[in-house]
Amino acid sequence: MSLPPPLPAVIIEPLVRAALQEDLGRAGDITSGAIVPGDVAWRAVLAAREPGVVAGLDLAAMAFRLMDPSVNFEPRVADGARVSAGQPIAEVSGPARALLSAERVALNFLTHLSGVATATATIADAIGPFGAKVVCTRKTIPGLRALQKHAVRLGGGANHRFGLDDAVLIKDNHIAVAGGIAPAVERARAAVGHLVKIEVEVDTLEQLEQALALGVDAVLLDNMSFHELRRAVAVTAGRAVTEASGRVTPETAPAIAETGVDLISVGWLTHSSRALDVGLDHQAG
Amino acid sequence: MSLPPPLPAVIIEPLVRAALQEDLGRAGDITSGAIVPGDVAWRAVLAAREPGVVAGLDLAAMAFRLMDPSVNFEPRVADGARVSAGQPIAEVSGPARALLSAERVALNFLTHLSGVATATATIADAIGPFGAKVVCTRKTIPGLRALQKHAVRLGGGANHRFGLDDAVLIKDNHIAVAGGIAPAVERARAAVGHLVKIEVEVDTLEQLEQALALGVDAVLLDNMSFHELRRAVAVTAGRAVTEASGRVTPETAPAIAETGVDLISVGWLTHSSRALDVGLDHQAG
Amino acid sequence: MSLPPPLPAVIIEPLVRAALQEDLGRAGDITSGAIVPGDVAWRAVLAAREPGVVAGLDLAAMAFRLMDPSVNFEPRVADGARVSAGQPIAEVSGPARALLSAERVALNFLTHLSGVATATATIADAIGPFGAKVVCTRKTIPGLRALQKHAVRLGGGANHRFGLDDAVLIKDNHIAVAGGIAPAVERARAAVGHLVKIEVEVDTLEQLEQALALGVDAVLLDNMSFHELRRAVAVTAGRAVTEASGRVTPETAPAIAETGVDLISVGWLTHSSRALDVGLDHQAG
Amino acid sequence: MSLPPPLPAVIIEPLVRAALQEDLGRAGDITSGAIVPGDVAWRAVLAAREPGVVAGLDLAAMAFRLMDPSVNFEPRVADGARVSAGQPIAEVSGPARALLSAERVALNFLTHLSGVATATATIADAIGPFGAKVVCTRKTIPGLRALQKHAVRLGGGANHRFGLDDAVLIKDNHIAVAGGIAPAVERARAAVGHLVKIEVEVDTLEQLEQALALGVDAVLLDNMSFHELRRAVAVTAGRAVTEASGRVTPETAPAIAETGVDLISVGWLTHSSRALDVGLDHQAG
Amino acid sequence: MSLPPPLPAVIIEPLVRAALQEDLGRAGDITSGAIVPGDVAWRAVLAAREPGVVAGLDLAAMAFRLMDPSVNFEPRVADGARVSAGQPIAEVSGPARALLSAERVALNFLTHLSGVATATATIADAIGPFGAKVVCTRKTIPGLRALQKHAVRLGGGANHRFGLDDAVLIKDNHIAVAGGIAPAVERARAAVGHLVKIEVEVDTLEQLEQALALGVDAVLLDNMSFHELRRAVAVTAGRAVTEASGRVTPETAPAIAETGVDLISVGWLTHSSRALDVGLDHQAG
Amino acid sequence: MSLPPPLPAVIIEPLVRAALQEDLGRAGDITSGAIVPGDVAWRAVLAAREPGVVAGLDLAAMAFRLMDPSVNFEPRVADGARVSAGQPIAEVSGPARALLSAERVALNFLTHLSGVATATATIADAIGPFGAKVVCTRKTIPGLRALQKHAVRLGGGANHRFGLDDAVLIKDNHIAVAGGIAPAVERARAAVGHLVKIEVEVDTLEQLEQALALGVDAVLLDNMSFHELRRAVAVTAGRAVTEASGRVTPETAPAIAETGVDLISVGWLTHSSRALDVGLDHQAG
Repeated sequence: MSLPPPLPAVIIEPLVRAALQEDLGRAGDITSGAIVPGDVAWRAVLAAREPGVVAGLDLAAMAFRLMDPSVNFEPRVADGARVSAGQPIAEVSGPARALLSAERVALNFLTHLSGVATATATIADAIGPFGAKVVCTRKTIPGLRALQKHAVRLGGGANHRFGLDDAVLIKDNHIAVAGGIAPAVERARAAVGHLVKIEVEVDTLEQLEQALALGVDAVLLDNMSFHELRRAVAVTAGRAVTEASGRVTPETAPAIAETGVDLISVGWLTHSSRALDVGLDHQAG
Repeated sequence: MSLPPPLPAVIIEPLVRAALQEDLGRAGDITSGAIVPGDVAWRAVLAAREPGVVAGLDLAAMAFRLMDPSVNFEPRVADGARVSAGQPIAEVSGPARALLSAERVALNFLTHLSGVATATATIADAIGPFGAKVVCTRKTIPGLRALQKHAVRLGGGANHRFGLDDAVLIKDNHIAVAGGIAPAVERARAAVGHLVKIEVEVDTLEQLEQALALGVDAVLLDNMSFHELRRAVAVTAGRAVTEASGRVTPETAPAIAETGVDLISVGWLTHSSRALDVGLDHQAG
Repeated sequence: MSLPPPLPAVIIEPLVRAALQEDLGRAGDITSGAIVPGDVAWRAVLAAREPGVVAGLDLAAMAFRLMDPSVNFEPRVADGARVSAGQPIAEVSGPARALLSAERVALNFLTHLSGVATATATIADAIGPFGAKVVCTRKTIPGLRALQKHAVRLGGGANHRFGLDDAVLIKDNHIAVAGGIAPAVERARAAVGHLVKIEVEVDTLEQLEQALALGVDAVLLDNMSFHELRRAVAVTAGRAVTEASGRVTPETAPAIAETGVDLISVGWLTHSSRALDVGLDHQAG
Repeated sequence: MSLPPPLPAVIIEPLVRAALQEDLGRAGDITSGAIVPGDVAWRAVLAAREPGVVAGLDLAAMAFRLMDPSVNFEPRVADGARVSAGQPIAEVSGPARALLSAERVALNFLTHLSGVATATATIADAIGPFGAKVVCTRKTIPGLRALQKHAVRLGGGANHRFGLDDAVLIKDNHIAVAGGIAPAVERARAAVGHLVKIEVEVDTLEQLEQALALGVDAVLLDNMSFHELRRAVAVTAGRAVTEASGRVTPETAPAIAETGVDLISVGWLTHSSRALDVGLDHQAG
Repeated sequence: MSLPPPLPAVIIEPLVRAALQEDLGRAGDITSGAIVPGDVAWRAVLAAREPGVVAGLDLAAMAFRLMDPSVNFEPRVADGARVSAGQPIAEVSGPARALLSAERVALNFLTHLSGVATATATIADAIGPFGAKVVCTRKTIPGLRALQKHAVRLGGGANHRFGLDDAVLIKDNHIAVAGGIAPAVERARAAVGHLVKIEVEVDTLEQLEQALALGVDAVLLDNMSFHELRRAVAVTAGRAVTEASGRVTPETAPAIAETGVDLISVGWLTHSSRALDVGLDHQAG
Repeated sequence: MSLPPPLPAVIIEPLVRAALQEDLGRAGDITSGAIVPGDVAWRAVLAAREPGVVAGLDLAAMAFRLMDPSVNFEPRVADGARVSAGQPIAEVSGPARALLSAERVALNFLTHLSGVATATATIADAIGPFGAKVVCTRKTIPGLRALQKHAVRLGGGANHRFGLDDAVLIKDNHIAVAGGIAPAVERARAAVGHLVKIEVEVDTLEQLEQALALGVDAVLLDNMSFHELRRAVAVTAGRAVTEASGRVTPETAPAIAETGVDLISVGWLTHSSRALDVGLDHQAG
């Protein structure tokens, strides 16, 4: 799994600007503005306080630079790097007032996204030996989907759909409305372009057979037991990508992966992962 | 602690619109658009899958209505309500296509914010008997600060600063630049209006005495031991609001509260709380 | 090919608002504002002045309603309908001032998008007998991609990629950088999720064989002769979707389709199609 | 007719940003991101594939630079230049990944606007010998009016109204509501400032006489025959600017111009002009 | 001078939304939210506390309705009405919390714009007997130009340019660069469309003669003495619109108007007018 | 009272961009664009035409630089400086066309904000000897609150609330709804965080006693006579900040201050202050 290149500035800059505006409000940083003279220069080190995978360095850098273009941000590792507790992630230097004002926004991006990447890596490590990959879902924090999906990849995971528009995922409700898997798949196939894949959620082996017979690209095996998953993989026999979902934790993941599924999707990577603890220690310049 | 009224639509509507646009992308919900005829009407129930505190009902309702104004969203409980596993939170009815297309965005808001409220309630419950209140920090998810702060209150917590501009919080770095607590407080006081409070972070009882002598409104007792906290409360003797922070968990919180501090601030409520599991079960109409 | 449902309001409303603001400028419609009293009610008919396929009715309706919510817009046909010269498309009634002020924006959307749909239909009709489908490209008018792609489907075409992010299209330059088709495909495959398809542009049958051997989803046969296309289709033998591109006109399209390719992509549908002539005839109320 | 200076960055930058965001979506250029290493430098030449008039060089340059500020864009001609088939228009060099990612957006602006300029030049050339000028209308692509109007001038045309707010154009409907040309002109005159001109659409010589008697600045002679146009010009005798509109093609334009009208307005320049074919040929750096 | 119709909602709504967001910040109206129960209904009267001309009623109404769509806003007079001290302008009823939260924003628009309209009326009244009209300038409050220009018309004034793009105003600096009035006018004429007027600022009668000889539409007689103005009007003899500017007050205006100029432009109407005192008196419902 | 540091660029840049877009419209500066060649360089001096306090230099500088990044803006004084009539405030040099195009926007910010600062200084000077401070209100120009509040501080004043969300101000209406000062204060206290101050508007000494007994942070003594103010100050005896409001002018302010109140709030500083006259004199370069 290759690491993704940084997201373009035209995508991330509006998010960083909005986050700064959210924190600065109408009056700006009234504490630092009152106390810190404009000509005091500082240097600070961002260091991991616990082991993890780094994500969001470019957003942190941009937060500082948008406060003051003269700030210098020097990463010590790259996004996607595994760091140990205490390891410096980046150094930042420049006007102390700007550093203090942008610090929280920079850290909010960095710790959240590193948390997503670290959680992903935990699962990825657990299932790697079995050849399975961990993927995220659309259960994301509103407004941060692009960033979170990127962090999942930095943690060694893969991306599921980015939205409702880039792939077809036929769920039980769609099947119910259409009156079966076959009509649902046929309607979807008639509607979408040749570069859009179709995945179908199946609850039983019978449904699985139907979906495979229709030549779908992937099947979502939702909340199946290990036994069912193993049989589903055998039945599929490489005719479609198999994705397991439901009750995935670092503890259960290896057993799920052992069933032979290609993918394990985990919603909590993006909706409930714990932020990575990263500290910023200022040092008089 | 009274429950807050809903946030105004002019604040939340841009966030819901942006979340829908993020999920719908350029082509919209291609699955439901292809499979679900426009005239199929459905009804669905949002129900908690685990006990918790509800937050974000108005955002969920707005997500559905912005997809289709004819959707009817009927809350079964109010924001701030404690619900048990399986308890219905709301019912939603209308065009099946709109319900399916808005479902994920509605749930992303509802489960995240209910998660924040629930985590807050866990701490609030634990420390309530001691008269302490739990407060959140500026360690929030970029873009969602107003919503998360609101959810903290729905969970029984109180709000710390909303941004860098609405109160002064003098930290160790500010004190270092200013050359002491006294000059830092004086500079801040000379700069801010009469409705802006000043809080000072203190690491030692000596610093605490200095801050109290300056008449600050609140003191942040960072990472102190239970013993130190107890002494700090005694020294303060009601002259300022006392706030403890650092290593707060549902397990440690009671002991911290028992020291007599007024407030316990917890960063992870907003940066690392687990989403509340809420399901949406569609029912043919 | 099924007709797509309307695009959601959260996608189209910002575009209609922006178009109205662009036309109204800072002072609004100074002509109608000065001459037309506020209480004059009118009715107008939008009618095709030439045969074509209708697209953009919801945008036209929204333009009128955003000028004045009391305007009543009644479509006489649905998006995707084929209309003859003189056939009424919709009727609109309400305050004359609002009708006159919104008329141009409504027509600018309607005539442009109907033009795209009509052009698409011309090609679709020409190649339909051969079982090929016409697809559009990313050569779109900046800002209108979602609308133009939608119009292509209303005209009987299918959509290619909506952007750089929803499918992989490996072109000659990518192949050159990677040092061959195989490494390019492998790098792409390692990077993207399981719901992302991969298409490769090939110039020769040798390249085609390489791409097919790698199991790519589609091949873009760029600027090949009829003879080459025919051989490419035979070589492919259903192993991938075949897409022909280059010098497609209503005249050349049948011969291209006759080669057996699955898709014919046409850039000018979205970058150079002629607007459909639609008139709006006001009638005193 | 002098060539206009470039539009200010504050006007064009939002449009270029939006176009890039539209193309990059949530995940960015996944093909180039996966295949092209970040340190590969390239050079490319933008060359006309057919003769035409260039417009949009600054937008193309901005598209590349917003992807990566280190990109170097060197125009070989200026906006408004006439180029022959094969003639280089600009050279661009920098990181290959950025060049590939921004290429389509840059070309979408450049080819569309050059198409508008080229179409304008076709008419301008045809009527130039007769002293008439070609002008565009408000029949523009939503969102691109400022750019298209600018391209018209680069092609040798002149601009009609930019919107509903910068001049008065009294049409048949306004006249009908007001109960005649005289009351319509009087109402308009009473409402607008001293720097706003008034033009009236007339269908007959009788209406023309009425309008001229009121001292209007210009008259729009809509869909008149050559004979009528000639008489209208004679009647007007320089008392107002005369503008002919309706069924203007490169073939009919000279005959219309020959009637002596000052202006010929052409809607299709902005709503239906064909994009100029411009290619971008990458060259390994 | 006819009164202008209200500005379209698509123009004013973004301004009212932004103003509410500016006032509500991240937490909303914490005072009313805490104290006023959601079910308390109120009625309030907006009344002038001094005589003046009303402007901005639609913005005030929109401020209340955007806070709560159930608010009922009933104007007692129309925009442009002259009111006496104590006269009710509008009544507003609905949820007390929404009324209190929107009150300041509603009044900020209403009092500022009524102030502009009232100042305009003061000058308009003073010069009306002489047949001159008062016009505003581009010296406006950033962001409010459309609203202020509208208020000027409601006060009986006329609008000068709305921006740099809707008319040509050649000032001394332009003349200096061009090397004279003649080349400046010629360059402008070659560049602009047939619906764009040209005004030239002249400091001397000699310059005035030059400008008139070139057939310009208007002349700006800047800071001339009464004597010079009178001679300028005589020299112009109706060949162009004459506009006087500089040191205009309600006291000096009549004497300036008496010189016979057509227009008197006054920058302070929009940059320095005093807000009209309007009170909002709540009444228990 | 210390001078505030400049507002961050992320706060002011959107306002300057919007102001330029408002002035440039769709076609830009058509006068300078037509007349001034792109290679003419100029220098200009911004000089006060009357004594005052400068505010808005960074906004003026940004206006020029956003028109053309090559413009050089050199302040001759700093924001907050007192200048005399004729004193240079800044020099600006660069392309003449950019200087002319941005001049009005730059001056509109500079003259308005300097006007606010100057008005503030007038009051501040008048009351300084008595130890009172002047504060502004929420009666601000929509969209400019952050800038105006900043200007007030530059003029020597202090800031009251920035919005409805950063402090509690309990007015007569709130008291009426709550049924008294005590329940109103209690409800507010139960709702807000520990860093939010509470001020209560009191009309009588009896109300003042009630408020003080509740330990509120500040009392607003609205429209009291000098005699009442003096008694109110005596009664308060330092237990709360005392703020007087109502009918404050440079003439009445000293007498109000003499009563011993801490603060005098003045709405007209931000809603009705006269712009400071600042000229920009171009000099051939």
